[in-house]
Amino acid sequence: MIRDLIMGNRSYRRFYQEFIIERATLAELVDLARLSASAANRQPLKYILSCDHQRNALIFPHLSWAGYLGDWAGPSEGEKPSAYIIVLGDIEITQSFGCDHGIAAQSILLGAREKGLGGCIIANIQRQELRKALDILPRYKILLVLALGKPKETVVIETVGSDGDIKYWHDSEGRHHVPKRPLSEIIIS
Amino acid sequence: MIRDLIMGNRSYRRFYQEFIIERATLAELVDLARLSASAANRQPLKYILSCDHQRNALIFPHLSWAGYLGDWAGPSEGEKPSAYIIVLGDIEITQSFGCDHGIAAQSILLGAREKGLGGCIIANIQRQELRKALDILPRYKILLVLALGKPKETVVIETVGSDGDIKYWHDSEGRHHVPKRPLSEIIIS
Repeated sequence: MIRDLIMGNRSYRRFYQEFIIERATLAELVDLARLSASAANRQPLKYILSCDHQRNALIFPHLSWAGYLGDWAGPSEGEKPSAYIIVLGDIEITQSFGCDHGIAAQSILLGAREKGLGGCIIANIQRQELRKALDILPRYKILLVLALGKPKETVVIETVGSDGDIKYWHDSEGRHHVPKRPLSEIIIS
Repeated sequence: MIRDLIMGNRSYRRFYQEFIIERATLAELVDLARLSASAANRQPLKYILSCDHQRNALIFPHLSWAGYLGDWAGPSEGEKPSAYIIVLGDIEITQSFGCDHGIAAQSILLGAREKGLGGCIIANIQRQELRKALDILPRYKILLVLALGKPKETVVIETVGSDGDIKYWHDSEGRHHVPKRPLSEIIIS
């Protein structure tokens, strides 16, 4: 069951933009992160939710999409995410967030997947610009933006070839191919 | 369903040590991490598995347990983990692991939970000593140790009180209490 959820939980970057995600749904997802592990139980993560057109439009321009797809600048109008969860680190609690934001992001995305949604963890963010656009206080470090929506693309997992190339790519039918290293390569002992 | 799994996925530190976890089970769990997101799809994480008494005994002494419980030095003989997954970062692939190890750890622990197991993400590691004990090459940065086993303790989630104290504690019956910040405190906008 968890394997099916993880298999279905690909990084989706094209969505049915007209699909509406309620703020209550985003809060439910953040609650999953809240109940997940945090280093020394410090719980330094804070969240900003966005699911309306106006706020979404303030966030989108400051995100970078799919670096390996040189010919693709990101989702076009009509295929943009319906919602975002911005993951912040509260530096008044700690300066060191360890991998708390990874744990939180995975809980949120698996929860989203279970609801038939999908998303993408974005760390390539124009942070200064996003901070300005949303008036985010200096107290909060911008760690990740989770883009969420109803996925509108097919993602295919394949095995990394003998050249070791891990760059994902789009085929002529728009399917997104993601090479994954085999288990035998990543378990070293 | 994912909420139940996350609720049940507490940080367990006492186990039925005699319970055996097979190497194949650990490999299945690493496969969940393999199929999870990785920044720029670089997949720099590598893994060492341990499920036999001898190797476990090489790992255990180099882990620090539950910092807030000053009177508890960690699980005693008979309650130690049955297995470990050591999460490494391969610096020949990248020097920057982002929060990949958090994503991977959460996938592994949710998978373990589904199998009736439980565990704890340990980042407080005597890294030099562990490296020496297991002959881990300098190429691999030691990121986390995941301790796994059949949990032998009750963990209770409660809400952080007005004093803001997030330190977990043991009650007189050995139950482990974990204060979590309320949702209203962590969603800031």
